[in-house]
Amino acid sequence: MSSIQRIRAAAERLKGHARHTPLLRSEALDRIAGRAVWIKAECLQHTGSFKFRGGWAAVSALEAPGGVLAYSSGNHAQGVAYAARHHRRPAVIVMPADAPTVKIENTRALGAEVVLYDRGGPRSREEVGEALAAERGLTLIKPYDNHEVIAGQGTCGLEIAAQAAANGVSEAEVLVCCGGGGLASGIALALEADAPGLRVRPCEPEGFDDVARSLQLGHRVGNNASTGSICDAILSQMPGEMTFPILKRLSGSGLVVSDDACRRAMALAFDRLKIVLEPGGAAALAAALFHGSDIRGDAVIVVATGGNVDAGLFADVLTQHAA
Amino acid sequence: MSSIQRIRAAAERLKGHARHTPLLRSEALDRIAGRAVWIKAECLQHTGSFKFRGGWAAVSALEAPGGVLAYSSGNHAQGVAYAARHHRRPAVIVMPADAPTVKIENTRALGAEVVLYDRGGPRSREEVGEALAAERGLTLIKPYDNHEVIAGQGTCGLEIAAQAAANGVSEAEVLVCCGGGGLASGIALALEADAPGLRVRPCEPEGFDDVARSLQLGHRVGNNASTGSICDAILSQMPGEMTFPILKRLSGSGLVVSDDACRRAMALAFDRLKIVLEPGGAAALAAALFHGSDIRGDAVIVVATGGNVDAGLFADVLTQHAA
Repeated sequence: MSSIQRIRAAAERLKGHARHTPLLRSEALDRIAGRAVWIKAECLQHTGSFKFRGGWAAVSALEAPGGVLAYSSGNHAQGVAYAARHHRRPAVIVMPADAPTVKIENTRALGAEVVLYDRGGPRSREEVGEALAAERGLTLIKPYDNHEVIAGQGTCGLEIAAQAAANGVSEAEVLVCCGGGGLASGIALALEADAPGLRVRPCEPEGFDDVARSLQLGHRVGNNASTGSICDAILSQMPGEMTFPILKRLSGSGLVVSDDACRRAMALAFDRLKIVLEPGGAAALAAALFHGSDIRGDAVIVVATGGNVDAGLFADVLTQHAA
Repeated sequence: MSSIQRIRAAAERLKGHARHTPLLRSEALDRIAGRAVWIKAECLQHTGSFKFRGGWAAVSALEAPGGVLAYSSGNHAQGVAYAARHHRRPAVIVMPADAPTVKIENTRALGAEVVLYDRGGPRSREEVGEALAAERGLTLIKPYDNHEVIAGQGTCGLEIAAQAAANGVSEAEVLVCCGGGGLASGIALALEADAPGLRVRPCEPEGFDDVARSLQLGHRVGNNASTGSICDAILSQMPGEMTFPILKRLSGSGLVVSDDACRRAMALAFDRLKIVLEPGGAAALAAALFHGSDIRGDAVIVVATGGNVDAGLFADVLTQHAA
């Protein structure tokens, strides 16, 4: 099956389950950005992020019986846990102990067993997760290096292609908050088929710009740090094995934003769009608003990927950055 | 023209301008409410509230040339100002001096001239507005006692009817945050035609339950206070002359919620739906979540009417009421 066939098949399985999220726009944001900014509000997706799409696509594609395991800073965890419960499979989720409380609690509330690990500890989450999956006979669902997960995230790209066309946008860069690259690569594959005038640009936080640097160099390189940005959702160590070749072929260069720019984008999304974004979910909007000179065209599309942020952090951001 | 014809005509004029807002749902909210809760997210409408619909419908229906005037605590002001600018008409907006800063500033940013008045002062906003309109030769667009405004708000009801049907909901109460009753009556008229199994229930804050008491008594009565609730968007003095007969004929009894319940509903909408609600925009959700015993049926539809809230108040609500 080709990549686009797999995405369309995932879209069929997600029909009636995933939310068709709106493409929002605000004149005030257009003025700041200096161009039309279209915001795909994936924070309104079930479980509060696009990860629901990939989790559902992967779990619904499983043929073998039994439980599933995922390692995740939180959003993939919730997506997999939600899908596993619906498909009546047990779910074990390996999460960093410093993940936002809201993500840990929501994952437990979805019926999953949560195993915490230390982000700075001796074993990586991949090692912890793979060992546990083997030990307990669970199917590992990786957060981005999984064809069905990429296909599920790609369904967001099918919607963007249709919504852009409906709004008369045929040429634009599509800014995507990027960790391991599952969403960016899935969207890139969908756009290649359905909207060849739209091109993905991955957006990352400073210090975690592994995808941007890997795209420059032409091969995968990692980050030095594993903590130190508020953008917890997109702090991956290195581009994915499966996702990087797709991005190398289809995406434009990466954009890198500061934590402060993400905070300001969160405050503006609150004020102008009435949506809740988490820091990592605001990275693409931050790039559109504050890095306009690195972007081409009269219109830009931003994927606002998630809204799972602790209330205390959100209140801080509003207090510090309110208009 | 019949009421429903007027609503359908307004829907035609709003096509391509108003946003078709999503109908959201969260399992966590269903659990709290004890039934399925469908949330029509009108906070995602342009200008951050449903009032855009009525403002646009009224301004686009004007035949006489010249400017417009509106009196409003903020949301109607923004709706009229936005529509007036698009239709190249000057707009003067009379607003209470204690309206949220964000609403006053946004109205000015839309190019309108803002005239402030004292909510507790000798002249009502109606008197201030009517005098100014006469003096300057402007067409007054009342916030709810205007057939085209009611028709514009009714377009929200057409969408609710279609979205409920698409989700298999044919019998339900539709909780609507209610000030003067423009939205509640417009939706009631739309549902009468397109979804007779859905019935409007107006929702008001304590101390400002003029619609609930008027429905009980069968004739219009007013409130004693004019200030004293955080639900600034829906603090009208008395049901509208035009809207009350419609509600009397079509709506169920009113629901009354505390300011505290609205704050808790705002925090839950943040946490579970990733949307921003203002206090008055959360009244219907508060009724669904905390007054379930006054509601009938397995499913309830909530209109989340607006999200124009100052950042400081929203941060306070999150800090006090976070899950």
